[in-house]
Amino acid sequence: MKIAIFAGDGIGPEVIAQARRVLEALSLPGLTLFEGDVGAAAYRRHGHPLPPETLEMARAADAVLFGAVGDFSCDDLPRELRPEQAILGLRSELGLFANLRPAAGFPGLEHLSSLKPEVARSIDLLVVRELNGDVYFGDKGERGSAGGREGWDMMSYNEAEVRRIAHAGFRAAMGRGKKLTSVDKANVLETSRIWRETVIEVAQEYPEVELDHMYVDNAAMQLVKSPGQFDTIVTGNLFGDILSDQASACVGSIGLLASASLGERQTDYGTFGLYEPIHGSAPDIAGQGKANPVAAVLSLAMLLRHSLGREEDAVRIERAVEAILADGVLGGDLGGSASTQEVGDAIVRKIV
Amino acid sequence: MKIAIFAGDGIGPEVIAQARRVLEALSLPGLTLFEGDVGAAAYRRHGHPLPPETLEMARAADAVLFGAVGDFSCDDLPRELRPEQAILGLRSELGLFANLRPAAGFPGLEHLSSLKPEVARSIDLLVVRELNGDVYFGDKGERGSAGGREGWDMMSYNEAEVRRIAHAGFRAAMGRGKKLTSVDKANVLETSRIWRETVIEVAQEYPEVELDHMYVDNAAMQLVKSPGQFDTIVTGNLFGDILSDQASACVGSIGLLASASLGERQTDYGTFGLYEPIHGSAPDIAGQGKANPVAAVLSLAMLLRHSLGREEDAVRIERAVEAILADGVLGGDLGGSASTQEVGDAIVRKIV
Ligand SMILES: CC(C)[C@H](C(=O)O)[C@@H](O)C(=O)O
Ligand SMILES: CC(C)[C@H](C(=O)O)[C@@H](O)C(=O)O
Repeated sequence: MKIAIFAGDGIGPEVIAQARRVLEALSLPGLTLFEGDVGAAAYRRHGHPLPPETLEMARAADAVLFGAVGDFSCDDLPRELRPEQAILGLRSELGLFANLRPAAGFPGLEHLSSLKPEVARSIDLLVVRELNGDVYFGDKGERGSAGGREGWDMMSYNEAEVRRIAHAGFRAAMGRGKKLTSVDKANVLETSRIWRETVIEVAQEYPEVELDHMYVDNAAMQLVKSPGQFDTIVTGNLFGDILSDQASACVGSIGLLASASLGERQTDYGTFGLYEPIHGSAPDIAGQGKANPVAAVLSLAMLLRHSLGREEDAVRIERAVEAILADGVLGGDLGGSASTQEVGDAIVRKIV
Repeated sequence: MKIAIFAGDGIGPEVIAQARRVLEALSLPGLTLFEGDVGAAAYRRHGHPLPPETLEMARAADAVLFGAVGDFSCDDLPRELRPEQAILGLRSELGLFANLRPAAGFPGLEHLSSLKPEVARSIDLLVVRELNGDVYFGDKGERGSAGGREGWDMMSYNEAEVRRIAHAGFRAAMGRGKKLTSVDKANVLETSRIWRETVIEVAQEYPEVELDHMYVDNAAMQLVKSPGQFDTIVTGNLFGDILSDQASACVGSIGLLASASLGERQTDYGTFGLYEPIHGSAPDIAGQGKANPVAAVLSLAMLLRHSLGREEDAVRIERAVEAILADGVLGGDLGGSASTQEVGDAIVRKIV
């Protein structure tokens, strides 16, 4: 079993260090770890946010554990050299088309949400976001126009692209509450029309799943108004970017939220994927021992589940995290005072 | 002074009827009202959701008071005949490029929000959404591809388009808290790069306004987490569609929220515009006397202010609405039991 670890920038290295300690505490047999550079750190060392050796390392691995990328020092670089290109490049080069973003509150932490406690408590949803298409990866550029310089980006989805993410959405819904909400803007976009027609076609294969369709503006409204109505949401790259962040904010404790980005390649143990906390690089608090490593640790749990077929170890980690939160071992972001290291220590103690 | 009234579908006619009573109660001298068909109602009568006579009526008016469009009976029509085309067509044909969507809580109604009362109370923002460009009005269609049928939509903004909406945003901010947040996705989209560069250039002319930039995913997060941080938001058509609905949901009482869509044409009294409640046609409760007419009445107040230069009458209406809400004259959507007619009656009584 090979795991590539890309810690990246900002608080990435700090939180990944704790996830790594948790991984080591599990003493998995036959596990090899590799470390690679991504983001601003890679740009400084290799002149590119996603150097070829990093990409090769990812390709050779069964899974990637990713920290975060992004750094104020790169604000003035042209887009193709900016840290974000590391994650966009990994997603496209590795064919990681299905982003799974669970958003659910942790019992006892509802008060951290800006939503009323009873609303926050009702949240238990999964956003399945397409990651390889849409306006992210279409042709784009600048051209002249009667109105001066014009920036343009091509948005599109074809049936094959929608089909595979729809299957991912339905399969995820089958493993949860069997309710799938497909989000689009079919009253305006041709891209969404193909999206909706294809999702309806794929639905035939999942008669047990209740499917509904929602326009993205209404979805953004409903996610605030009554987020408890959602079970599984499937949507495109751009709408998924917005709605999954909104859903995380509704939960209120983004230092606890993990994500998986899965491809089609099967490893000997599961599905190849990349796992990352959703909190980002938070350069303002980097290096101060304040970052919450829980999201990185829970990303590791997702990695063990989806890419290494080690459900039991995933559950062990998740139980350990629940236990330390119940014990009140909370970082500053959750209203406590535990340092990154102390949270890591506490989780490791529960594992061993 | 000429006002064209397009009541439309669902609860549109009911709420507009009350707004009209309020207008009549003001007894404005030299006012002529015209009524036109839009939406499903227009489709049934004329075979098109935006018949040429309706468009002519709008062109000849100083302002349009709009109800809502949309009806289950039209779900299977091709897109160009669906009720939404009425509003999209009016926006583009009349050059209504600036959509103003205020979102602020009404004192005493914070409990209606799913946000904690102190968070809901902090909301007092205005979304300035571009309405004539972006992926809404670019070329679009279906084509063949290796992955089967492909839907595509061209997203773009040029400098002239961004400049005029940026000016609208800065001017609005000048009349409010002098803080403008421009929302884009400049880390991914070329459209957003031109957007951001142009907004920065326009900012030179408004040295008093504090400008910042936010990615749309972060904006969706911040709008839930701490909506009180926003004063004025300026953004494109698609992001504005999503964020303005999200902001309305944060307030919690969408039956109270109005909007204005302004063009460049100056009338003898102000700026030509279209005014509509944001709640939509709500076909499920149409015809039951349950709809809340307050948003339609407040849309009329915006109309008087922006298109007819009658600030005093606008304020009279707004005060009347505040007074009836304080008196507890609340429709079912606000936890009360007043009918559409009763709410209208109460407002009219305060006006006279
Ligand atoms: C950094 C950025 C390009 C990225 C995205 O938009 O996909 C991020 O927001 C995310 O959601 O992972
Ligand atoms: C009906 C629809 C086309 C419209 C839009 O997307 O602009 C609506 O959602 C709105 O915001 O007025």
